[in-house]
Amino acid sequence: MAYRETTKVLEKKSQMRSEILRSAETLVRVGGFKALTIQALANDVNMSVGNIYRYFGNKDALSVEVFRHSTERELLAVAQAIQGKTDISQSLEAGVRVFAERAFRAPVLAWALIAEPVEPAVDESRLFYREAYARLFEKVIAEGVASGTLPQQIPALSAAAIVGALAESLLGPLEHNGPEQEVIDGLVLFCLRAVGA
Amino acid sequence: MAYRETTKVLEKKSQMRSEILRSAETLVRVGGFKALTIQALANDVNMSVGNIYRYFGNKDALSVEVFRHSTERELLAVAQAIQGKTDISQSLEAGVRVFAERAFRAPVLAWALIAEPVEPAVDESRLFYREAYARLFEKVIAEGVASGTLPQQIPALSAAAIVGALAESLLGPLEHNGPEQEVIDGLVLFCLRAVGA
Repeated sequence: MAYRETTKVLEKKSQMRSEILRSAETLVRVGGFKALTIQALANDVNMSVGNIYRYFGNKDALSVEVFRHSTERELLAVAQAIQGKTDISQSLEAGVRVFAERAFRAPVLAWALIAEPVEPAVDESRLFYREAYARLFEKVIAEGVASGTLPQQIPALSAAAIVGALAESLLGPLEHNGPEQEVIDGLVLFCLRAVGA
Repeated sequence: MAYRETTKVLEKKSQMRSEILRSAETLVRVGGFKALTIQALANDVNMSVGNIYRYFGNKDALSVEVFRHSTERELLAVAQAIQGKTDISQSLEAGVRVFAERAFRAPVLAWALIAEPVEPAVDESRLFYREAYARLFEKVIAEGVASGTLPQQIPALSAAAIVGALAESLLGPLEHNGPEQEVIDGLVLFCLRAVGA
């Protein structure tokens, strides 16, 4: 009986943790990381501030977890877009397009993930995930170079450059609402030309 | 007499402030912003910690000032390189090359300015100065589009993409020591191709 109660308690805690995290992601999606306060979260999930801290040790840890969770979803979408095509140019285009389209669909979240001034702990995660994005593009570029579809280049360099180009160039358009289609098409062209596709 | 003494005091304070700032920049150049502690600074300039705080209200303000001061020097070098050429492609190439060459010459400083996880206040300044870099490239690209030297594109978009590409793609090579010439040439090619030059 004691054992089953413990399991139940753990399950409940895990559910509660997921609920807090979901609520935290919504706060960031709407108002960026600056809107993610323990107080706002406590109000949202009907908990005391002290109780929230029992689930997430501190604000930094919570921010990092929200950042990771949201970014992994974006990364997965880009990975699937890239892997869904066999042609090198189409793969690159799909990756760029999905990244940009998703950013326009959730502009505040995209800005928060890409560039909002935040705690250094989130900055650390940004560096990590930018490398993860770069590896997706690197694989395609390396294949293109190996097969002669793309000109000689350092695939890791071009890939990182594409990730930087995507992140930086979307900030203005996200803030000023586009023009979405022109921006996305422009970015696709920029990236394809850049690698010689 | 009182007036002249005040002037002298002000001069002395201003000199002292410059000395602290110079020392702070050296700390960042050698070990990044994480090496910039008020204690290290106090040791360097032979002052008490409390005295340092009389010149710079807090650590954030000091970090931001060091960031700005260093970045403005870099920005000026890139601006001069771009303005030193009349041909569009040569202008863009000079800007990219000077940015990258200077980064390789002071790799820790470059990493600290571009990407080291830091206080949000420095992140704010990063956004500001990235836009300043972008405006330099935007001007050249817009001229190229207007004269028909470059294909139609949104100059602000391509310019921001170049700045993002430069910043992101240099991080790996700066950390792993190159290969400098190959990386710089690769970046120049990436950026020129990207804008259709």
